[in-house]
Amino acid sequence: MSRKLFFTYNDIHKTIKKLAKEIKESGFNPDLMVAIGTGGFIPARIMKTFLNISILTVGVKYYDKDNKIQSEPEKIQWIDEVEKKLKGKKILLVDEVDDSRSTLEYCLRELLKHEPEEIAVAVLHKKNKKKSGVIPKEIKRYHTGKTIPDCWCCYPWDADDIEKHDSMSKE
Amino acid sequence: MSRKLFFTYNDIHKTIKKLAKEIKESGFNPDLMVAIGTGGFIPARIMKTFLNISILTVGVKYYDKDNKIQSEPEKIQWIDEVEKKLKGKKILLVDEVDDSRSTLEYCLRELLKHEPEEIAVAVLHKKNKKKSGVIPKEIKRYHTGKTIPDCWCCYPWDADDIEKHDSMSKE
Repeated sequence: MSRKLFFTYNDIHKTIKKLAKEIKESGFNPDLMVAIGTGGFIPARIMKTFLNISILTVGVKYYDKDNKIQSEPEKIQWIDEVEKKLKGKKILLVDEVDDSRSTLEYCLRELLKHEPEEIAVAVLHKKNKKKSGVIPKEIKRYHTGKTIPDCWCCYPWDADDIEKHDSMSKE
Repeated sequence: MSRKLFFTYNDIHKTIKKLAKEIKESGFNPDLMVAIGTGGFIPARIMKTFLNISILTVGVKYYDKDNKIQSEPEKIQWIDEVEKKLKGKKILLVDEVDDSRSTLEYCLRELLKHEPEEIAVAVLHKKNKKKSGVIPKEIKRYHTGKTIPDCWCCYPWDADDIEKHDSMSKE
């Protein structure tokens, strides 16, 4: 997994626009989004422009400081008192990348406990690789902006020098 | 207030980088960020690249559907069970724009109730205009990426057509 893929902000904006259109055309009309932090924050905020629904956020740390997966994820922030807002609702769960699928599975299982009417998944990118996590069977809708090879994703929000980052995206 | 100012994602990325440097050089070392949603989500996520601290989010709706200010803000999401995480902590409160200052005042007063050690404000843009909200006296640090005239801010995340938006930013 040595290859790096660089995405500009505008690439991502356009991918989200397309993804929002696909979700609308699928007939799913979410009541609200849940963004998985912090990778899902920017995709979800762009998505809001096209779907015009509120965003709740959850923060989960699944990797320790050495980027090693932890046996138990650490909740940075959860929905707490507003969990009741999830009951009977149609939720769009948003994240930037479906990589190992572990975070996605964890969040889906936690959210399902609150008896939403339905949850759909929207990820900016889906890595084409073997997944260790599983999408629970209750989830019938899964949308991705783009399926990409199993590479290292370089997102613009992580760039120290955004001009240099953009020039790498053109190579 | 008819003039419109268009900002590209890269403009904002660079402004946040400069702002993060200013905060670091001021000697303030925040333990965590609180991002005011949804305008603060993208600035806070970019800021995380430079400050490397966790983000909690709060969602406040201060305007109704007609963009009229409400007498009482509506909490979309609050910090709930993790409020205890604020006690004794140095917090950086992040939003995209200091406009009327009402949302900022409301959030600062709410956060101060949880006895943080200190709260500093970081806004991407500060509008040069008379403010109806007040920064509480407990707040000693206020940072802005850029002071701008009292105009209509067009942020990239709100763009339907991002290429057209970018071309407007060059005019």
